[in-house]
Amino acid sequence: MRPVVALAGGVGGARLAHGLAGIEDVALSVVVNTGDDFEHLGLTICPDLDTVLYTLAGRANQAQGWGLEAESWAFLDQIGQLGGPDWFRLGDRDLALHVLRTQRLRDGARLTEVMADFARRLGLRAALLPMADEPVRTLVDAVGGELPFQDYFVRLRCEPPVRGFRFAGIAAARLTPEVKAALAAPDLAAVVVCPSNPFVSVAPVLAVPGLRAAIVAAGAPVVAVSPIIGGAAVKGPAAKMLGELGLEVSALGVACGYIGFADGFVLDTADRDLAPAIEALGLRTMVTDALMRDEADRVRLAGECLAFAAALPRRPR
Amino acid sequence: MRPVVALAGGVGGARLAHGLAGIEDVALSVVVNTGDDFEHLGLTICPDLDTVLYTLAGRANQAQGWGLEAESWAFLDQIGQLGGPDWFRLGDRDLALHVLRTQRLRDGARLTEVMADFARRLGLRAALLPMADEPVRTLVDAVGGELPFQDYFVRLRCEPPVRGFRFAGIAAARLTPEVKAALAAPDLAAVVVCPSNPFVSVAPVLAVPGLRAAIVAAGAPVVAVSPIIGGAAVKGPAAKMLGELGLEVSALGVACGYIGFADGFVLDTADRDLAPAIEALGLRTMVTDALMRDEADRVRLAGECLAFAAALPRRPR
Repeated sequence: MRPVVALAGGVGGARLAHGLAGIEDVALSVVVNTGDDFEHLGLTICPDLDTVLYTLAGRANQAQGWGLEAESWAFLDQIGQLGGPDWFRLGDRDLALHVLRTQRLRDGARLTEVMADFARRLGLRAALLPMADEPVRTLVDAVGGELPFQDYFVRLRCEPPVRGFRFAGIAAARLTPEVKAALAAPDLAAVVVCPSNPFVSVAPVLAVPGLRAAIVAAGAPVVAVSPIIGGAAVKGPAAKMLGELGLEVSALGVACGYIGFADGFVLDTADRDLAPAIEALGLRTMVTDALMRDEADRVRLAGECLAFAAALPRRPR
Repeated sequence: MRPVVALAGGVGGARLAHGLAGIEDVALSVVVNTGDDFEHLGLTICPDLDTVLYTLAGRANQAQGWGLEAESWAFLDQIGQLGGPDWFRLGDRDLALHVLRTQRLRDGARLTEVMADFARRLGLRAALLPMADEPVRTLVDAVGGELPFQDYFVRLRCEPPVRGFRFAGIAAARLTPEVKAALAAPDLAAVVVCPSNPFVSVAPVLAVPGLRAAIVAAGAPVVAVSPIIGGAAVKGPAAKMLGELGLEVSALGVACGYIGFADGFVLDTADRDLAPAIEALGLRTMVTDALMRDEADRVRLAGECLAFAAALPRRPR
């Protein structure tokens, strides 16, 4: 078995993680962003962890692009009838995860333990690892004032222009024993930075004290996959954010953020012209079909990433 | 408008309360048992309050005999898939009440305020009043050990024989301003003890310090309706409990518990032979069709109870 660590945010990250988990000889650990977790209706909700959980379990809602398959909405409808907040769409079935998690966290369990139990119950082979057990909350420095991430992302539909981000609680976050162990596997084949938003999905993970250093110390090739294809984000506000932050709205803009960290960068054939500029940044590049339309695409891209990583020079520990 | 106070537990109590609320010139306040409230999955669940709320809102599930109409069960199914406790049946739509209530109580609201808001949202004309804002929890002294009420009632389906009951927290419970005001209405027409379980629905209400005294001081006629018809409970374990406690399993057994408190006692035509014995206890009796099969029965029985109360001598304040 080849140990592989993936860093992931929501949908795009979950898809590539699903592809990696689908490779028979890969022992996958997915380190997932918790910066967009939040408290809503008294429940602790972890959108990225849950997206990765549902996707790896083969239970993600494909049509909707988020949430759980075969979902119903009676709870949310009744919340509305009772005058409660219904802007964040909590499905009836999805709610079970939030209620159980909230109760177990209140009872003193670590988020890592809670998610591991859910992962086991839903039959995951991969290890689903929160980036930290301590609460970290992404705050968006938007024109008009600082916003909790889900207010920005869901309630305001990413409309306010952004100027930056802050990860509240990050200084108190600790590398978990599970993440540490995954990165310390002596034969670690690769660290794959999934095609997730670099600012609000990957950055919080790398901001956990000690996590970035542990990746560097692991010595395994680090391969990042561009979430921007043809100047647009496959999903979410990554392209909009690049522009608002004054960065180049392209795979090159993303690659700039991974200088000195990633060894290899995967970009779509649509962006092949950017490869020389990215190589000039000191990143090796692989050009391929980086859009994951279906499960076959996920496994293919995952395999290509690992082959790319295997061909990269192994860094000294 | 005639002010009327009803004391109620779950289904039977809710039905008569619904009948009383359906009388045009009645201003109804229902004081509801909270002794069977409990914490489950981190949520504060108030079965009797919710049964009365849904029944008065015309939203009770008639076929099922409890819960909300048009209910679905995706949440509970998923709880089971995740290895959580699914013995207490929480419907998707019903869950909205528990989640909102739990959050608002945690934020410092009184249970009375929370339920008043729900009642307003669901269009209730009647005032829905918890017997107290402080938590009171009925414990069943059963053969084999003391049990939290819902463990006894739902999980163990009332199987263990009972020896008595304890209302944990009752000493710290206080008469709420709302219950006090309802009972202090100068022209209070009647206090109706609905056909609820005398041990686990009515007794906790009357055990709230000051509540029984406030009813006595009100001076309005107190009329109790038998939940036992023909030696059997219409619903629930009342008959089984009477037997296990060594009391007579009949309307007479129930009436014994209301000596010195109720002025009048309503029993079913099936039990007309018991009327002389109940009269001998010092209670005036009314014999009628006490089984509520449909909404017309509820309003009819409610009207009869009020007419009966009006004919009883008004006690001195």
